[in-house]
Amino acid sequence: MLSTMQDVPLTVTRILHHGMTIHGKSQVTTWTGEAEPHRRTFAEIGTRATQLANALRDELGIDGDQRIATLMWNNSAHVEAYLAIPSMGAVLHTLNLRLPPEQLAWIVNHADDKVVIADGTLLPLLVPLLPHLPGIEHVVVSGPGDRSALAGVAPRVHEYEELIAGRPTTYDWPELDERQAAAMCYTSGTTGDPKGVVYSHRSIYLHSMQVNMSESMGLTDKDTTLAVVPQFHVNAWGLPHATFMSGVNMLMPDRFLQPGPLAEMIERERPTHAAAVPTIWQGLLAEVTANPRDLSSMANVTIGGAACPPSLMEAYDKLGVRLCHAWGMTETSPLGTMAHPPAGLSAEEEWPYRITQGRFPAGVEARLVGPAGEHLPWDGESAGELEVRGPWIAAAYYGGADGEHLRPEDKFSEDGWLKTGDVGVISTDGYLTLTDRAKDVIKSGGEWISSVELENALMAHPDVAEAAVVAVPDEKWGERPLATVVLKEGAAAVDYEALKAFLADSGIAKWQLPERWSVIPAVPKTSVGKFDKKVIRKQYADGELDVTQL
Amino acid sequence: MLSTMQDVPLTVTRILHHGMTIHGKSQVTTWTGEAEPHRRTFAEIGTRATQLANALRDELGIDGDQRIATLMWNNSAHVEAYLAIPSMGAVLHTLNLRLPPEQLAWIVNHADDKVVIADGTLLPLLVPLLPHLPGIEHVVVSGPGDRSALAGVAPRVHEYEELIAGRPTTYDWPELDERQAAAMCYTSGTTGDPKGVVYSHRSIYLHSMQVNMSESMGLTDKDTTLAVVPQFHVNAWGLPHATFMSGVNMLMPDRFLQPGPLAEMIERERPTHAAAVPTIWQGLLAEVTANPRDLSSMANVTIGGAACPPSLMEAYDKLGVRLCHAWGMTETSPLGTMAHPPAGLSAEEEWPYRITQGRFPAGVEARLVGPAGEHLPWDGESAGELEVRGPWIAAAYYGGADGEHLRPEDKFSEDGWLKTGDVGVISTDGYLTLTDRAKDVIKSGGEWISSVELENALMAHPDVAEAAVVAVPDEKWGERPLATVVLKEGAAAVDYEALKAFLADSGIAKWQLPERWSVIPAVPKTSVGKFDKKVIRKQYADGELDVTQL
Repeated sequence: MLSTMQDVPLTVTRILHHGMTIHGKSQVTTWTGEAEPHRRTFAEIGTRATQLANALRDELGIDGDQRIATLMWNNSAHVEAYLAIPSMGAVLHTLNLRLPPEQLAWIVNHADDKVVIADGTLLPLLVPLLPHLPGIEHVVVSGPGDRSALAGVAPRVHEYEELIAGRPTTYDWPELDERQAAAMCYTSGTTGDPKGVVYSHRSIYLHSMQVNMSESMGLTDKDTTLAVVPQFHVNAWGLPHATFMSGVNMLMPDRFLQPGPLAEMIERERPTHAAAVPTIWQGLLAEVTANPRDLSSMANVTIGGAACPPSLMEAYDKLGVRLCHAWGMTETSPLGTMAHPPAGLSAEEEWPYRITQGRFPAGVEARLVGPAGEHLPWDGESAGELEVRGPWIAAAYYGGADGEHLRPEDKFSEDGWLKTGDVGVISTDGYLTLTDRAKDVIKSGGEWISSVELENALMAHPDVAEAAVVAVPDEKWGERPLATVVLKEGAAAVDYEALKAFLADSGIAKWQLPERWSVIPAVPKTSVGKFDKKVIRKQYADGELDVTQL
Repeated sequence: MLSTMQDVPLTVTRILHHGMTIHGKSQVTTWTGEAEPHRRTFAEIGTRATQLANALRDELGIDGDQRIATLMWNNSAHVEAYLAIPSMGAVLHTLNLRLPPEQLAWIVNHADDKVVIADGTLLPLLVPLLPHLPGIEHVVVSGPGDRSALAGVAPRVHEYEELIAGRPTTYDWPELDERQAAAMCYTSGTTGDPKGVVYSHRSIYLHSMQVNMSESMGLTDKDTTLAVVPQFHVNAWGLPHATFMSGVNMLMPDRFLQPGPLAEMIERERPTHAAAVPTIWQGLLAEVTANPRDLSSMANVTIGGAACPPSLMEAYDKLGVRLCHAWGMTETSPLGTMAHPPAGLSAEEEWPYRITQGRFPAGVEARLVGPAGEHLPWDGESAGELEVRGPWIAAAYYGGADGEHLRPEDKFSEDGWLKTGDVGVISTDGYLTLTDRAKDVIKSGGEWISSVELENALMAHPDVAEAAVVAVPDEKWGERPLATVVLKEGAAAVDYEALKAFLADSGIAKWQLPERWSVIPAVPKTSVGKFDKKVIRKQYADGELDVTQL
């Protein structure tokens, strides 16, 4: 039996129209580094987005689902691109300006981008790439920055402001299928080629609603959010679309992401909310410790992208700023969980909940899958790989202009769930605690041992500077942990038995205690400073480590 | 270009599963009139809903999209029906127990209901109807109330608790199409047969998200909502599904809707939010004025179903209870607007916004259509009929088991928008003010005159007790207003010229002033106390009124 309800698609076009009318007075404020920031109302941004769509169609020939890349900081022109490109039926492709140039080129070519809109200040990054981007027909340059390097490049070059000036302020927006592509973003995996996630109008619309639900970020037009998280990083966690849906004011740092300018813009513009990774909050804390600033307007902060050290939360609590953990990935749009504690708890009782990754909203189904593929209970103890399902979760990766979507079996289950690659436990009341990456967990006799848990326990020992635990093959158990430790300067000669006893004393189960030990001079690290465990595994396999077996 | 996102349907099943797991500790508290209310956790309700689904399938033979009626107050068993019936693929049909019996019977037969779940206290209403309900095969009785009248009735009779006891606590929920029917509700129009609106899983899911967005009711598991609005009235404004989605605690008054018990349950249970029509809040105000109670926990109240008198808002402001206007209809699920003022205003500046119907969320598109079918600007002055569009707005009415959906052209535009039958204006910032019903508006020479505006202006005159203004045919202008007035006891003989001058003085435009006047002994009223203007129009047409033409 069919309902009698209207079949109205969930589209970015609707968000654009709603934001520029009902919330026409809300503002996007972009930091300029000058005395006054740059301000535009949603009405202005909506009108300019409409002009941009006209320009893209009439001047640049965009007439379908071509990919249009942006190489931009967080600013109001970038918001215009976020609204115009999907609404006209094309696909917004945000480029991560922190990627190595060759990866960036690979991504642009894989997505078959036709146009790139770039901030003028990012031309030093873009121009050297252009000879390697044969598909790019147009470069549109926005904002400040020296243009001279563009002389003689192959694509046609347009000034953003000149391009949109005088264009019609209406557009006959197409009626889009909500499952159509709206935007894409590539993950920069540590192995293999980057993988493209293609968001639909439906997924963006539903994700925006979820972000605006009170159990998530829950902002309104009475709020201002400081979006530090880049617009090239999972759509700035969905904020530009979510804010336009609910009239939330945006404060955009553009390229001024250093702690000093951030502290200044918070004190001057008084945002009520902010979103960024822990590194940003670490830096800001150091800054305001040295040069005190009033951050207290920013009562709520969403922190994600990496686990937040509890000490950082405590430090911000003292400044009247509450950090709320969120977990997500490029493949999850990204809102997967948020760590609002349940009701009725004291601050002390809330603490154990706040340091979890949080709980899932109704739109995200979750399950834990154990070593043998079995589904594990939510008991706070059973550790498994987290798999998720929902209307804003990826089912595949983009296969290129002529290819089918890719469904690698290490990333997607047979029944279509996303394998997150994260290992953790879920409490009986639905709070997720991640304990390890699936590739780093030690699969020992049908049980899982968390490498991170062992590392944290080891690093609590006074003689240990760093510790990395990796899985190594074991005839009897399949895998067993190898503990590699870096001793502190001036530490006594290593005593592995004592370290093992220390682990046992700190609550590690007996069967999880490592038998294999090695002292190393330093833990190998990736370019972003994470432990590079595959190097240690290779050193072990190649016999390069001096291993003691207890 | 297709996205790479999962195609996961938006279903009530998902809401059920989410609420009973992640929010398993949230509660539904049902008033019993005894010392202690009845409390159930969402986990218990979810389990019992699962058992109900098993019982409906295995014992009552529900295996498809059969309609299952409820004749119930707001209570936890009714919430179980809300979750179980749609999740198993059947259709929940809530019956309005305030309808005349013959209309109720007509509705049950038109919907082809197979089962009715009834509160025991409502058997005196149900049992006399049963001989007229040939399609009803099963009656399930829940809660207190004398069962003796059921002896010898034709359908099989089941006790709710016995029916679900011992049933499996799992169910192989079907994967439903989100556009499938989930629930239905008939409008009780003043003319013609009642009309059935059939909600889809998609419409309920999206509406629930909107209710939970901060710009709407925006509740979380830290809140308790007192749902006074009946569950048979547009799904209690969506609260049971919305609360299960976000873990909001529910306080259910069951049959205890009198001001005394309401005041008591508010003081004792301390809800943070409530939802009801103005009549309820009028009654409660009188009650607490006579017998003071602490209502201040209830900081936010959603008020809808009829315009809220500003004096009522002011009175509650003084009690620390903020009434927020909402507008909607059975055909709009019902959330159409909510009157949260825009940001940055003083209490005084907020006032003009609070007395509007409010502004539209992103999911509701709105337009005003003028007398000649033209679309009118949002300028706060151009009055037109409000038409709306969106994924939780009706496109048609239910045509019966064998019929096609009905799309009467006075209710739906050619391009599929709902004609609300309400006339109003929309401000430049998107706030709706309703001024009249379309059927009551006076179409004079291509312009519209609001009957309500004239009535309000007339009733401000010291000699006038009541006034009703209706459209009457006019050769030159098409229609002109006829003003009928009820004089106050002891008022001097009527002076129509003086009344006309009084209207002009109170700001009514000259061309809108009535030429035709009549004193009547009382304004005819409908069964629910609204002005029954069609009676006046008929009296005029039949020459029964003593009309003076100025």
